[in-house]
Amino acid sequence: MRCEILSVGTELLLGDILNTNSQYLSRRLAELGIPVYFHTTVGDNPERLKKALEIAFSRSDMVIATGGLGPTQDDLTKEVSAEFFNKKLVLHEESLKRIKEFFEKRGLALTEGNIKQAYIVEGSRVIPNDWGTAPGIILEEGNKILILLPGPPKEMIPMFETYVVPYLLSFSSGIIHSRVLRVCGIGESFMEEKVKDLIKTQTNPTIAPYAKEGEAILRVTARADTKEEAEKMIERVVEEIRKRLGDYIYGEGETSLEEVVVDLLSKKSLTISIAESCTGGLISARLVNVPGVSKFFKGSLVAYDNEIKIRELNVPREIIEKYGAVSSQCAMKMAEGVAQKMGTDIGLSATGIAGPEGGTPEKPVGLVYIGLYIRGELSYKELRLSGDRNRIRLYTTINALDFLRRGLLNL
Amino acid sequence: MRCEILSVGTELLLGDILNTNSQYLSRRLAELGIPVYFHTTVGDNPERLKKALEIAFSRSDMVIATGGLGPTQDDLTKEVSAEFFNKKLVLHEESLKRIKEFFEKRGLALTEGNIKQAYIVEGSRVIPNDWGTAPGIILEEGNKILILLPGPPKEMIPMFETYVVPYLLSFSSGIIHSRVLRVCGIGESFMEEKVKDLIKTQTNPTIAPYAKEGEAILRVTARADTKEEAEKMIERVVEEIRKRLGDYIYGEGETSLEEVVVDLLSKKSLTISIAESCTGGLISARLVNVPGVSKFFKGSLVAYDNEIKIRELNVPREIIEKYGAVSSQCAMKMAEGVAQKMGTDIGLSATGIAGPEGGTPEKPVGLVYIGLYIRGELSYKELRLSGDRNRIRLYTTINALDFLRRGLLNL
Repeated sequence: MRCEILSVGTELLLGDILNTNSQYLSRRLAELGIPVYFHTTVGDNPERLKKALEIAFSRSDMVIATGGLGPTQDDLTKEVSAEFFNKKLVLHEESLKRIKEFFEKRGLALTEGNIKQAYIVEGSRVIPNDWGTAPGIILEEGNKILILLPGPPKEMIPMFETYVVPYLLSFSSGIIHSRVLRVCGIGESFMEEKVKDLIKTQTNPTIAPYAKEGEAILRVTARADTKEEAEKMIERVVEEIRKRLGDYIYGEGETSLEEVVVDLLSKKSLTISIAESCTGGLISARLVNVPGVSKFFKGSLVAYDNEIKIRELNVPREIIEKYGAVSSQCAMKMAEGVAQKMGTDIGLSATGIAGPEGGTPEKPVGLVYIGLYIRGELSYKELRLSGDRNRIRLYTTINALDFLRRGLLNL
Repeated sequence: MRCEILSVGTELLLGDILNTNSQYLSRRLAELGIPVYFHTTVGDNPERLKKALEIAFSRSDMVIATGGLGPTQDDLTKEVSAEFFNKKLVLHEESLKRIKEFFEKRGLALTEGNIKQAYIVEGSRVIPNDWGTAPGIILEEGNKILILLPGPPKEMIPMFETYVVPYLLSFSSGIIHSRVLRVCGIGESFMEEKVKDLIKTQTNPTIAPYAKEGEAILRVTARADTKEEAEKMIERVVEEIRKRLGDYIYGEGETSLEEVVVDLLSKKSLTISIAESCTGGLISARLVNVPGVSKFFKGSLVAYDNEIKIRELNVPREIIEKYGAVSSQCAMKMAEGVAQKMGTDIGLSATGIAGPEGGTPEKPVGLVYIGLYIRGELSYKELRLSGDRNRIRLYTTINALDFLRRGLLNL
């Protein structure tokens, strides 16, 4: 079954919004084993939309169209689809009830356009919208399938996952199941190198690597008759990946590096404070991403100025004079100093040259030291990062959190 | 002249990469007054690519295709285009020279695939690639125009801007010129409301609003015979916009809120330090985005814990007991305390409830206080923000920088 993705909306053709729906659907369809050969984007114009449907169905068995289900007169994907298949639009009472409730709950007035949203193509089944007003539809006509979904990703994605994925799975025998491994402290290409043969030879489960701002993700997806069977198949592959990547894998599923770190702090009942220089607060801000972190995180000192490092973090002036502020010695003193100042078990620090100015042949832009103090024990890590100021600061942040994670694991 | 954007690459159909090129080109073409009616994405498959070219040229006068100019055997946009127009591929010596130099400079070995990149469609003109290896081409055939550009945005965008935009302008009389106004401290919809009539009635110059993470942008674009004339036309509109938006406009062109703030600090020779609570370091990190900020920014204290606020920032315990840590009183004491601790002219602070926990009926999630100390003068701003934890922290950061900016402007 070939699928084509049709995005409807003049705002896409004007470049006002980025088409993330096509990518999302393509990735998910690939995981479901359904080939996608074309994406098309067309504006809110009935003739061109009808023409686009004609072309799409001339070369594909299934079309998933997003957008144009809104309440305005410009929204006419349903109208044009009905015309294309020579069908009428009929009122769907259940959807009208939902829409009315949606507005009542929010104390808003229902408009005529919203009533229009409750109409569906005759003979289609409804995809309920629990996240907004416009229902989607699935229309089977001969050997062709048309699926209409709203454009906003906040509605489109949960509707697709909740109602369309199970529908699509009904075409294939068995189910699809995946597990996500989260990796950091290793470049994406280096990670791929380590598991390249697995990626190439595996067809079920498949292994798909994704890069994500300084981290990497491996998604292992299996197709099997039952979930248990799929899980077993995935487990075998994950085991092999774990052998190769070891503790570069920091977590699984819906988590983040900072959540894993806070979880470790919680398990070991340890408090932390942070001393930052080149990152200027980014490490702390990442940690504060995690709700409830206040039980473990006391505070940070951003010591951008050397005098502040000396006065507030007790870094001996001689260390800065002898080794410089960007040195392992200074990083460790900063970590120790902040832990003592804030009265925490752990102190984490980062000092480096983020550029574009300030580099020298001995200490080039990208040289960074991470310092870690855990109950009297001091350690450090040297990084040599490339890229611009923002990249260096981002990678310093991730490396600092990862260094902390490894320190906590080894306790 | 109707234009269509054709994106070539199987990785797009697999959802491995997001198609940002189509949005970029669409926006720029809209600004140039060239209508775009369709986007199509097709994989690295010669038959389907040829078919896509056929369809595109059956409904559009110009096709801009990106991708498929790389060195591998999968890259065949040029080959298929040549076949489509019944043309041969010929070696372009100048491009071969450039490619050879590109590799020599990097100490890399030239592959056969890279030599392939130096071939162009017979009769086309070359778009030089100063940012990578694959040259682009412009092919005029009858009343049809085909423009091929590489897929990576880092090459595509500068090639488009440097060589394709002037080419496209040659079709219209005159030139296109724009100015960008940057706005903050006002919601996007509220901003649009204030200039809606201008946006609706203006056709030349046009006014286009964009939202950008808690800020907003207004791009004013004029078409005229000369740059001077365009500038005059834009100036009249900008004047009217400035009348309506006043100091909600924080800057123009390629700048950022943090750059504007650092620029003001520099002009007034003032130093600053920051005390953060709910933002956990984000405000400092934004300021540290600006290279050379170290002359003005001394350091920050992230006082997540109340005891740290009391001990390190000298916030009187009674203030926290009487008004709470999320109060205007505490915010101002934090600002004063950090300025004194770090020995700076200015202290900026933020304290609030970012959620999801910690809200009460009197102090709901989203309540935030910004405190500002400037040489003995104290002031504060109360915010009532909505959204999730990350949104509240982002908007607090922007509001804090904006409050500081206004404080500096009023000095």
